[in-house]
Amino acid sequence: MISNDLSFNFKIKKLGPHLSRRGQLDTPHGRVETPAFIFCATKAAMKSLTVEQLRNSETQIILSNTYHLMLQPGAETVNHFGGLQTFTGWQGPMLTDSGGFQIFSLGHGSVADEIKGRQRGNRQKTLLKINEEGAYFRSYINGQEYLLTPEESIRIQKNLGADLIVVLDECTPFHVDKSYTQKSMQRSHRWALRCLEAYSAMDTGSQKLYGIIQGGTYPDLRRESAEFVNSQPFFGHAIGGSLGSDKVQMYEVIALTMSFLSKDRPIHLLGIGGIQDIFQGVLLGIDTFDCVHPTRVARHGGALVKPWNLSSDLNREHLNLRNSGYRLDKKPIEEECACNTCQQYTRGYLHYLLKAKEAVAYTLISEHNIYFMNSLMKQIRHALEQGTFMDLYKAYMERETCATC
Amino acid sequence: MISNDLSFNFKIKKLGPHLSRRGQLDTPHGRVETPAFIFCATKAAMKSLTVEQLRNSETQIILSNTYHLMLQPGAETVNHFGGLQTFTGWQGPMLTDSGGFQIFSLGHGSVADEIKGRQRGNRQKTLLKINEEGAYFRSYINGQEYLLTPEESIRIQKNLGADLIVVLDECTPFHVDKSYTQKSMQRSHRWALRCLEAYSAMDTGSQKLYGIIQGGTYPDLRRESAEFVNSQPFFGHAIGGSLGSDKVQMYEVIALTMSFLSKDRPIHLLGIGGIQDIFQGVLLGIDTFDCVHPTRVARHGGALVKPWNLSSDLNREHLNLRNSGYRLDKKPIEEECACNTCQQYTRGYLHYLLKAKEAVAYTLISEHNIYFMNSLMKQIRHALEQGTFMDLYKAYMERETCATC
Repeated sequence: MISNDLSFNFKIKKLGPHLSRRGQLDTPHGRVETPAFIFCATKAAMKSLTVEQLRNSETQIILSNTYHLMLQPGAETVNHFGGLQTFTGWQGPMLTDSGGFQIFSLGHGSVADEIKGRQRGNRQKTLLKINEEGAYFRSYINGQEYLLTPEESIRIQKNLGADLIVVLDECTPFHVDKSYTQKSMQRSHRWALRCLEAYSAMDTGSQKLYGIIQGGTYPDLRRESAEFVNSQPFFGHAIGGSLGSDKVQMYEVIALTMSFLSKDRPIHLLGIGGIQDIFQGVLLGIDTFDCVHPTRVARHGGALVKPWNLSSDLNREHLNLRNSGYRLDKKPIEEECACNTCQQYTRGYLHYLLKAKEAVAYTLISEHNIYFMNSLMKQIRHALEQGTFMDLYKAYMERETCATC
Repeated sequence: MISNDLSFNFKIKKLGPHLSRRGQLDTPHGRVETPAFIFCATKAAMKSLTVEQLRNSETQIILSNTYHLMLQPGAETVNHFGGLQTFTGWQGPMLTDSGGFQIFSLGHGSVADEIKGRQRGNRQKTLLKINEEGAYFRSYINGQEYLLTPEESIRIQKNLGADLIVVLDECTPFHVDKSYTQKSMQRSHRWALRCLEAYSAMDTGSQKLYGIIQGGTYPDLRRESAEFVNSQPFFGHAIGGSLGSDKVQMYEVIALTMSFLSKDRPIHLLGIGGIQDIFQGVLLGIDTFDCVHPTRVARHGGALVKPWNLSSDLNREHLNLRNSGYRLDKKPIEEECACNTCQQYTRGYLHYLLKAKEAVAYTLISEHNIYFMNSLMKQIRHALEQGTFMDLYKAYMERETCATC
């Protein structure tokens, strides 16, 4: 248990099966009951949602991306408005990433896909050079060149003002060999030390720093990286880097990493947030998750549902409301769901809105998906408190597993 | 005063200066205090807004367009869900137009612009033929050919289920000569009689029919058309057709038309809804207005403000929040506005959202604009009750007038 100034605190309230735990993460902007889901307000706004809708969907904490915000509107502008919580009107707990993931993801063209074991076409590469100093990249907005160093990432995150901030690291893709992964990890550790130094130099107690565990899929590297972060005065730890080529390997890498991590700090799993992933992650001791999935899938007409509400394709975790089968469907997305969307709108109307390309479709499905995830996390927390987590786990996981969904 | 079954009723509560009046329009789905603004949920959805946001913005009544809905999802589909009020979740008073305006507007390519005195490039023409039977046009969605007759328009509007429905008319553009305007008007009158017959044949008391006054800018034709609608058992009247080439002529045509119309029925002004237009319209006896302006201007970053809150361009009725002058502006759109957007968000944040192309920008500015219009109508109604309408009129109109804004 770590107690800190300005009401920062992480407390484990109860241990559950395997490494699972029910906790509480306090920040100056409020308490986060864990395990929790952190929603991605990438560009200081949730896609298609107001902060009222976010609050009504029982959201506890959101994150924004340093990479996007340093380019537009700029960290100084956000600071002018009093930081992200005031700028966005959210006023609740927030996290920012370091900017590294997007630089390397957009830079290599397909890191995000590789980390999650997906194969897609290459995107335009914007990463220019990476050396000991930092990462040189080109703005996706106007082509201007930028250098992001560990010190600059901390300075920017300081200006953005989120409660939880993260060290700059290189996010290595799956295709690089062990030698590169090792060298990169060691440089990320040196960057982490520079981040810690920069952080300490300007620390006013209003933000806490997370270290990141790298090491790809290699057990010895993951151990080295975990031992490194354990030894440094981070408030929390985040599991990053390549987690393998499929879900089975991903769970193995997480399990392995967790076996080396000290258990007294909050642990975040970066960029992973499918329903099955969350159950596996919680069992392995993860406290917080983040993923663009709930809002991104909504923009493609996907409404998250419990496995027993899946009408057909069991490889998915959502209904595809664009499907013509929903055209005359008078039911809500989920009969038992208490979200605003399920209380007022039918699948048939949502199907029509998607077909008619009405933007409010994305709002309504996103509202459901966010409420769904928050409600799922609440159930998980309740089950951990009551000692019934494995029953819930079985109820959600008892279906054909699929390595690609 | 007309009293009708199923709680339809129109009552004039108080007369104000010139022809202005404070009224009450009751429908089975609720009461509309007049003068009132009817917001355009064109395709059975308000652009970027949920019905909760619409209600929170104090909206009384919305309209949907027969033309769009007959093509997608089809009137039978809407009827399957119990009609527009249930389909959309709005559950309040609604109006549908006849489909005519869009057929002729999209058909001729620029009718809407001409009616409102604007000049723009031609759009693709989809009107194929118009004869005594009805209008042949091509679907903008899939190119399929349709024939819309007066009887079919009523049948469709019956299926859509709005409280207030409208006769099919030909909406003549400004450029046609008097001879065509006259012939067209007379055919529209014959269509109106066919609409009345079709309406009476299937009337169950759940809908009321509005007649439309045509006649372009010609006083004798406007008189003929007004006398025609006066003589028929319509519940209300709507002023349609070309209103001239600029605002001055528009107010003249409205004044002229109003001078011929009997005063016991609710009178709607089709497709007009600028702030100045509303003050002129109310003074001339208009009870309800509709216009896409509040939500359309929002999608271009325009936030409606009172004339004394206009920072510079007095030819406009809104602030253009895309303007870089708002980048660091910590003020809300209007300091004194009680809308959700003004309570929680700065101009600077809205400016950023527009620049970052975040869809929630359109939601937040639309929420303000709708609240603004509802609040304006509320002030107007209050002033009519208190006998202070001309003071309010002067406060809003005392600025350089502009024929093109």
